[in-house]
Amino acid sequence: MTHQPRVVIIGAGFAGIEAAKKLGKHRVNVLLIDRHNYHTFIPMLYQVATAILYPHQVVYPLRRLFRGFSTVNFLQAHVEKVDFDQQIIQAENTTIDYNYLVIATGSQTQYLGVTGAMENTFPMRTLTDAIAIRNQVLSRFEQAVKVTNEAERIRLLTFVIVGGGATGVELAGSLSELINSALGKDYPSLNRDRSQVILVQSGERLFASYPEKLGKYTEKWLRRQGIKVHLNSKVSKVTSEAVYLEDDTAIFTDTVIWTAGVLAAIPQTKQPVKTATKEKILVEQTLQLCGYENVYGVGDVSYVESEEEFNGVAQEAIQQGKTAADNIRRQISGKIPLPFDYFNKGRLAIVGKHAGVGKIGKFAIKGFIAWFLWLEVHLVYLPGIRNRLGVLFNWLKYYFFGESASRIIISTNRVRSNK
Amino acid sequence: MTHQPRVVIIGAGFAGIEAAKKLGKHRVNVLLIDRHNYHTFIPMLYQVATAILYPHQVVYPLRRLFRGFSTVNFLQAHVEKVDFDQQIIQAENTTIDYNYLVIATGSQTQYLGVTGAMENTFPMRTLTDAIAIRNQVLSRFEQAVKVTNEAERIRLLTFVIVGGGATGVELAGSLSELINSALGKDYPSLNRDRSQVILVQSGERLFASYPEKLGKYTEKWLRRQGIKVHLNSKVSKVTSEAVYLEDDTAIFTDTVIWTAGVLAAIPQTKQPVKTATKEKILVEQTLQLCGYENVYGVGDVSYVESEEEFNGVAQEAIQQGKTAADNIRRQISGKIPLPFDYFNKGRLAIVGKHAGVGKIGKFAIKGFIAWFLWLEVHLVYLPGIRNRLGVLFNWLKYYFFGESASRIIISTNRVRSNK
Repeated sequence: MTHQPRVVIIGAGFAGIEAAKKLGKHRVNVLLIDRHNYHTFIPMLYQVATAILYPHQVVYPLRRLFRGFSTVNFLQAHVEKVDFDQQIIQAENTTIDYNYLVIATGSQTQYLGVTGAMENTFPMRTLTDAIAIRNQVLSRFEQAVKVTNEAERIRLLTFVIVGGGATGVELAGSLSELINSALGKDYPSLNRDRSQVILVQSGERLFASYPEKLGKYTEKWLRRQGIKVHLNSKVSKVTSEAVYLEDDTAIFTDTVIWTAGVLAAIPQTKQPVKTATKEKILVEQTLQLCGYENVYGVGDVSYVESEEEFNGVAQEAIQQGKTAADNIRRQISGKIPLPFDYFNKGRLAIVGKHAGVGKIGKFAIKGFIAWFLWLEVHLVYLPGIRNRLGVLFNWLKYYFFGESASRIIISTNRVRSNK
Repeated sequence: MTHQPRVVIIGAGFAGIEAAKKLGKHRVNVLLIDRHNYHTFIPMLYQVATAILYPHQVVYPLRRLFRGFSTVNFLQAHVEKVDFDQQIIQAENTTIDYNYLVIATGSQTQYLGVTGAMENTFPMRTLTDAIAIRNQVLSRFEQAVKVTNEAERIRLLTFVIVGGGATGVELAGSLSELINSALGKDYPSLNRDRSQVILVQSGERLFASYPEKLGKYTEKWLRRQGIKVHLNSKVSKVTSEAVYLEDDTAIFTDTVIWTAGVLAAIPQTKQPVKTATKEKILVEQTLQLCGYENVYGVGDVSYVESEEEFNGVAQEAIQQGKTAADNIRRQISGKIPLPFDYFNKGRLAIVGKHAGVGKIGKFAIKGFIAWFLWLEVHLVYLPGIRNRLGVLFNWLKYYFFGESASRIIISTNRVRSNK
């Protein structure tokens, strides 16, 4: 080992790659570990699930991302255990030592104890999940062409989304558009009225973390598209045939997409860590772990007390990754770490074609302007010029000519991945 | 049923879609059946396996392909049985009747009785196969970074291709280029000398069906790239650790790609069919099945006696598909079918960057001109303007700037698909 301190970053999400870039720019030795060899641009995943974008357009290979950073190394591995006292990480028969550690492992799906949810629903967190949903939806159409039983056809063409947050709403709007366009063009023999998208939300309004009027606007917009919105509805059970609500309503469907719960994805640690809501690691104002001043927790995996309300959006992770990197550099040069100070740039979500919602500072915006801003902001943050051009091309084609990306079903196997 | 005769086509390869288009243009009722919802442009599959192209660029959704043909319908299904006497097809609980049938089901991999070949090698026939090979190759690099044992690292970076025909040669050349470029740019810590591509050919030369000098040229070219070419070598056994040749040589490797054998993929039939070499359906000069004048066999699945030597290239399938369509139209209007007359436009194959071989009429061509012609011809035949533009873009990037498509490993699971 050289005298240069080594920083290990676990997780190459928004927080992890921001920290790696900041440290790499200042020639600090970094080892970035992730189980995939690519960074996933999660805000656009739902557009892969609904065939607006191609899978490769929302990911970026990590080795290419850090090609220009000579002190940043990458390891594709699954982290098995972290030992804070020994300052080592176990990862697939390898032991890695660190001077500083950044935990940026994000979150995972939480099924809230609902019977059958894990086995019978599709999660929406990874590229593999998004591709599985796309295959599922498109192959339901192919199945629906074949069946002779009308009830079974309706069941095949019923798509249920659980969770009325950003992911659930964006999927619902986009899925409904895919269905209308696909049914019209590719399946003229299927009756549009047989198909439905149903959004189930446990709370009394959509977008609970946005101003109330945006939730109302969204609900109205979705209903106008023909989407059935169930508010104050909790799912009690999911089977391979149907989803059951707590009021005993049964919705017969072959496709339930689960976007409702979220839980921190903490790696196994030898020493116990203090946790807060949703099992997040409780960190100090400086983002350091309580009791371990050379360990940072950033992004969705951690919880920091703040006047701000954090909602798990990319900007929070990016800014925390930056703060962790700055603080590590301060520690290396003998200074004390500074507290995290969030600059809220606002939030945006897409509801459907030419319709979005957002909150920027004190202003709630909605409609075309919010939609347009979403596209612009995300295009700017998407890594890679090739991806940006490709996405722009697909968006123009989709939003102005109504033509989605190739609707190919790569595998006809039913894949329900929880990884 | 209407009075209009119905033509059922099984298989949406080159022969099947050509027949469907020809019949659709003349408003004949067609039902096209395939187990995938897309047509695969097989000659370019190896470029997906070696990360030159993206998966969606070499396939085209069948429903979109036939959107302009109001009399052509598509069914995604697996055909279980054909009954020539009853004129019906069993496909996933559905019974489909036909007046005319075109069997265009292509070929499948044949493991030539080699022990362990089916279980331990990667086939290269479908899009899923190509993606599995890409994932395997790229993840071998990630594995090689992690291992500490040098022999194991060499084993991980050894790639064996069995079969010295067009697919084997194209894969070998392209894989060797991927390795050199990837090792140089993404894995600076891995030593280039540790990696090798080995091509195993049972016969005494490569490209057995091309003029001898082209085989020699190809062999020399591949060897100059550092590829080890084993001629007169038959594989006797494949295990998860190594591939064994008949002379007892053991090559330790984690990746064996099988391009050697080929067998017709005939659907199950109630009545026995006459077969020829490689279990192909023996058809009359008119491409009709012996004894069933309303059933045609076209493309790789069938064998027609001819002065021409057929090699399973796209042109043969396309022209046979066209002939079958013309003959069915003749039969519908009370005329007798005409014999198939092959117009040999020539053949081309890529050996590597800026190097190809080909035979056009009596002329054997090689080098840059053959390479350039290959690209041009395949670009022209590729369906879809979007795919053509994308492929052209990727080729320019790859052949002139040495940058391949995103090297993403979508799944880290080891997939060995024989479907």
